[in-house]
Amino acid sequence: MEETFVPFRGIRNDLKGRLLCYKQDWTGGLRAGIRILAPTTYIFFASAIPVISFGEQLERNTNGSLTAVQTLASTSLCGIIHSIVGGQPLLILGVAEPTVLMYTFMFNFAKDRKDLGQKLFLAWTGWVCMWTALLLFLLAVLGACSIINRFTRVAGELFGLLIAMLFMQQAIKGLVEEFGIPQRENPHQTALQPSWRFGNGMFALVLSFGLLLTALRSRKARSWRYGTGCLRGLIADYGVPFMVLVWTAVSYIPVNDVPRGIPRRLFSPNPWSPGAYSNWTVIKEMMNVPPLYIVGAFIPATMIAVLYYFDHSVASQLAQQKEFNLKKPASYHYDLLLLGFLVMLCGLIGIPPSNGVIPQSPMHTKSLATLKHQLLRNKLASTARSSIRKNSSLSELYQSMKDAYNGMQTPLVYQLPSALGLKQLKESTLQLASSAGYIDAPVDEAVFDVDKDIDDLLPIEVKEQRLSNLLQSLMAGCCVGAMPVLKKIPTSVLWGYFAFMAIESLPGNQFWERILFLFTAPSRRYKVLEKNHGTFLETVPFKTIVTFTLFQTAYLLMCFGLTWIPIAGVLFPLLIMLLVPVRQYFLPKFFKRAHLQDLDAAEYEEAPSITFNLPLEDLDLQSRTTNIDGGEMLDEIITRSRGEIRHTHSSKTSSLNPTPLEGSPRMSQIVHSTRLNELRGERSPRLSGQGLETTQASSPGPSTLGQISRGSSS
Amino acid sequence: MEETFVPFRGIRNDLKGRLLCYKQDWTGGLRAGIRILAPTTYIFFASAIPVISFGEQLERNTNGSLTAVQTLASTSLCGIIHSIVGGQPLLILGVAEPTVLMYTFMFNFAKDRKDLGQKLFLAWTGWVCMWTALLLFLLAVLGACSIINRFTRVAGELFGLLIAMLFMQQAIKGLVEEFGIPQRENPHQTALQPSWRFGNGMFALVLSFGLLLTALRSRKARSWRYGTGCLRGLIADYGVPFMVLVWTAVSYIPVNDVPRGIPRRLFSPNPWSPGAYSNWTVIKEMMNVPPLYIVGAFIPATMIAVLYYFDHSVASQLAQQKEFNLKKPASYHYDLLLLGFLVMLCGLIGIPPSNGVIPQSPMHTKSLATLKHQLLRNKLASTARSSIRKNSSLSELYQSMKDAYNGMQTPLVYQLPSALGLKQLKESTLQLASSAGYIDAPVDEAVFDVDKDIDDLLPIEVKEQRLSNLLQSLMAGCCVGAMPVLKKIPTSVLWGYFAFMAIESLPGNQFWERILFLFTAPSRRYKVLEKNHGTFLETVPFKTIVTFTLFQTAYLLMCFGLTWIPIAGVLFPLLIMLLVPVRQYFLPKFFKRAHLQDLDAAEYEEAPSITFNLPLEDLDLQSRTTNIDGGEMLDEIITRSRGEIRHTHSSKTSSLNPTPLEGSPRMSQIVHSTRLNELRGERSPRLSGQGLETTQASSPGPSTLGQISRGSSS
Repeated sequence: MEETFVPFRGIRNDLKGRLLCYKQDWTGGLRAGIRILAPTTYIFFASAIPVISFGEQLERNTNGSLTAVQTLASTSLCGIIHSIVGGQPLLILGVAEPTVLMYTFMFNFAKDRKDLGQKLFLAWTGWVCMWTALLLFLLAVLGACSIINRFTRVAGELFGLLIAMLFMQQAIKGLVEEFGIPQRENPHQTALQPSWRFGNGMFALVLSFGLLLTALRSRKARSWRYGTGCLRGLIADYGVPFMVLVWTAVSYIPVNDVPRGIPRRLFSPNPWSPGAYSNWTVIKEMMNVPPLYIVGAFIPATMIAVLYYFDHSVASQLAQQKEFNLKKPASYHYDLLLLGFLVMLCGLIGIPPSNGVIPQSPMHTKSLATLKHQLLRNKLASTARSSIRKNSSLSELYQSMKDAYNGMQTPLVYQLPSALGLKQLKESTLQLASSAGYIDAPVDEAVFDVDKDIDDLLPIEVKEQRLSNLLQSLMAGCCVGAMPVLKKIPTSVLWGYFAFMAIESLPGNQFWERILFLFTAPSRRYKVLEKNHGTFLETVPFKTIVTFTLFQTAYLLMCFGLTWIPIAGVLFPLLIMLLVPVRQYFLPKFFKRAHLQDLDAAEYEEAPSITFNLPLEDLDLQSRTTNIDGGEMLDEIITRSRGEIRHTHSSKTSSLNPTPLEGSPRMSQIVHSTRLNELRGERSPRLSGQGLETTQASSPGPSTLGQISRGSSS
Repeated sequence: MEETFVPFRGIRNDLKGRLLCYKQDWTGGLRAGIRILAPTTYIFFASAIPVISFGEQLERNTNGSLTAVQTLASTSLCGIIHSIVGGQPLLILGVAEPTVLMYTFMFNFAKDRKDLGQKLFLAWTGWVCMWTALLLFLLAVLGACSIINRFTRVAGELFGLLIAMLFMQQAIKGLVEEFGIPQRENPHQTALQPSWRFGNGMFALVLSFGLLLTALRSRKARSWRYGTGCLRGLIADYGVPFMVLVWTAVSYIPVNDVPRGIPRRLFSPNPWSPGAYSNWTVIKEMMNVPPLYIVGAFIPATMIAVLYYFDHSVASQLAQQKEFNLKKPASYHYDLLLLGFLVMLCGLIGIPPSNGVIPQSPMHTKSLATLKHQLLRNKLASTARSSIRKNSSLSELYQSMKDAYNGMQTPLVYQLPSALGLKQLKESTLQLASSAGYIDAPVDEAVFDVDKDIDDLLPIEVKEQRLSNLLQSLMAGCCVGAMPVLKKIPTSVLWGYFAFMAIESLPGNQFWERILFLFTAPSRRYKVLEKNHGTFLETVPFKTIVTFTLFQTAYLLMCFGLTWIPIAGVLFPLLIMLLVPVRQYFLPKFFKRAHLQDLDAAEYEEAPSITFNLPLEDLDLQSRTTNIDGGEMLDEIITRSRGEIRHTHSSKTSSLNPTPLEGSPRMSQIVHSTRLNELRGERSPRLSGQGLETTQASSPGPSTLGQISRGSSS
């Protein structure tokens, strides 16, 4: 994206791009049929449980002014609006931890003011939202999102780790509170006697650790030895909500003798109870807020605007990573504008606003990539099978597959200049086949293994549509009605879920992995190197890594410390945004440019990168083929997000053997589909195995696949 | 061992062999100096914690007649006597789970008899012990131990799994009881009110799962990424007792409001409290037992005799596996005779008898192998360094190392015909060196890496002595005096420890691994194959594996079911012993001989085997070198115990290329030290790397190391 600050230009471009594919956004979604429910429910659970948890957290922090009803309502409302009129429908909206934190700061400020108090708290936040919306409008109009590429991983990962720390803090705080007397309760009831409080606390420990450990375990189900692949995938995708169910059921086991209220459960009024809907009419009270506070609301509004500008854009960016090979355009400016309207709306009806959330947004794209993969695969497999039945040659087979593939392609009016994957499938595969000498013989299943080879041919594509986002938002809305059921979830299960979210967010965060690296025994550092790692481990001196990581850690602790300061804490988003100029202007004075690039590739100084670091030398093809399946592979894309992992060997090869095809648009598809194979760690042994070996021997010709792939990645 | 049943011959042979090295057993131990404390404390903890747990279990099952004081006293007393006058000092004695079970059966029988009751229970068990001792004398004298090779893994592993099930059963039972009212307590005290009982139960869950999970984790410390190798080793070896300490400390955290008795702690009188020593004078009451019961005591005595015969011999066998390369003789017959005396002694003073325990006995040998390795290594390294300083050639270097090595060797009077490792070190290494062309040049650290190459040269040897066993028994005795401290351990920590023991005993149990294999998804079976596995996975049809495993499982469940039957349960050892003839005469009718051999190699029909299955083909030398260190390697030996893992490629190589040196006693040392290298998965790259490659190419000459190793293993 070019950095241009002409007013409205960004928004106009976004609108133009998205309008062209708007109709297809719906028809494409509808055409996927019932299968669309898989990504929908997957994202719904991933989105709803945290939102409920944040509701419980807000309920405690705002003394009941805001509850899970409001957070769910905001998530649902904003989600529905965004999925219908928003720019990028892959982006998932929801109430997020920073919002909770900001609302907590604001509540703590408001409750002690005589002329504000808890009564006018929501009205005042209404004003804050007004200001925030205004600032967001300004940012959107002025094209602030065009500098999104300056948001490097230093800032993003620090933010991620800060959120993880806040999650963990909440989990610990929540667990400790399970031993105490909650403020809202009558301290004389049976369940709050010291003996029962002790039992409640211990039970909470059991439930939360139970949830944490089983949820962490279920996420790894895909690599389990037991059960069918389908079951393992199901557990990996839905294990966490299922575990919430299981541990909620466990919490009902102790019945006799145990009084009501043990364990403590989610506290929230039903949305139809009297008083629960007082917030919906907050607009009436907004004029009662003293003018001084209306003006003063500008200060937290700046912070929230900065926060949302950063968080919303980064979530959108992560949902549209290069690796996903999206075909429809991005829409940063317009989405920020829409976010402004949504914030205003939420403020007026007294609910906390939603913004783009991580990791749900990239998770959404990923699940749609899986869906698209299944759809394409089924179609091509049936085409291939019928071709084989007709005794076609390999070239005929590919011709028919190409036709089928093209038939499946989105008929886009708007075409990105670099769009891939429309026509090159046949060329690339035929080229491979001819080099392997299979081109004219009639094909049978031995030459073309339908199930396996089609997987190899398919590029990553995403079913880009609006239906899944709309449906999951509607489901979140249904949760508001299902509040009596949700209230059966023990709070301790939610604390366990907080801890789970904190721990789950760590892998793939390079900052975190560098911290661990500092503690790794020197004799075991090779283990980090053996696993998939960033180039920096090889190219940056250990001392530099240490200094950089210590700087980042100090900065993180500063941000975390700031959130503890009662009212100044509201400034923490500023500190994170500050990291962007610090990275651009301050850090290069202390670190070598090359080292900085490797530690934190900024696009303004970035070297091209390949998505996956697969050391070709020690690749045991046979075992890899069976080791990694599609789901596991797609898992990987999410965790290592930003394409920072370069293939260290590639640059050498390409500079030694420049190929004429390198970089030509026709070849990019070939490269792409090969790259996909590498991603999977598998290769059709008949078609590309040969190429691989030649590459090892460093042959100069461009004919082999491995060669091209390597050349392109420099 | 030849199967001979001439009375006393076995005992005489054992005595003759062990007497010749008796003096060295002591001097060798004393010469090891302070380092002997490492294996001593390691085994002490591994032995004492279960014995304390069994004490708690017995205390509940016998209504307080026997407690941890008695189990510790028996362990200590029998251990001291065995370490001084016993045959095989590597064998560790202790009160074991089957003993607890038998005593429980006997108590349940005795308590309901009017003319016996709890009062005469111990006196009656005294008579049982008399009979047991008599039977053990008979078995020992008649040479019953010479058939020990017929105890195949089918029986041993079924027994192991049965014990694991009993452990787990006790852990669950104990945890459930934490929610209830214990029999011995006054049900009106504060800690037994429903609310506190609930809290106590939940706290017990936290403590026991805490112990279980952290203990399991600490056992894997050697492969952690963090901390120094020394610290990791320390955690892996002492992590479990340390965790008992930690969780005991945790149990003291809730102080205010929580009444005494929460959590419940180990119950045992101090040995000096009045009444606690009543059992020591049980001999006085033995004449009060009605004659009918004295005769009837013969029935449980048969069972205990069968049990001890089996258990004691198998424990001894596992402590003396071939892989340990022991130099001093075995002593099965004499040790069984001594066990008879010990049982009699224990019976007369009213404590449960001890017998040889698994896994402590093989753990003991292993820790002594590590000790010997360290001692040898230090000596040789200093010799090598001084040689290098003197600019010696490689042959001089090896000459001086050979002298040092021989100086470290046990000057045995009694020499086993197949004793290895006395003089061949130099020859073998020189041969390697000359083949690598390094022989006459002056050596420097680049050619001979002192730290690494010495590890490669050293064979596995065990510091065979009596001191560590004596010291650990004395320490167990001190525990009796430390009862007031031990009583601070919460019972829930002990239940967690029971579960830990059950789970820890599973890996390496082929029966268990076959059960898991049945549940493994077909597409993931290769994962089992990839890991270190038995030959049977490749050679035995899946259906046969299923049938065999189902048969074994049914048999196991039968044994487990039998232990549930109130009094007939006493017969369970018979069912396990019955498996020996079933294996020999019954199973061959239903399974092919070759399959049976692969599933359960019995020596009477066994093919020679190699200890470790290291597929040389896909060995990434460089990474292996750093992957596995000495400690991890020795860990492996224990878990895969019985040398059943054959190198599938080895037999082919050797039959194709018979080498003249094969089997000659001089070469066996070379072979051995190479095998050690294979065990470690490392190789001195300069000396043996070449040899490895030649092996791959199947060259016929005997000059390369890898070749010899493979040849010998067929």
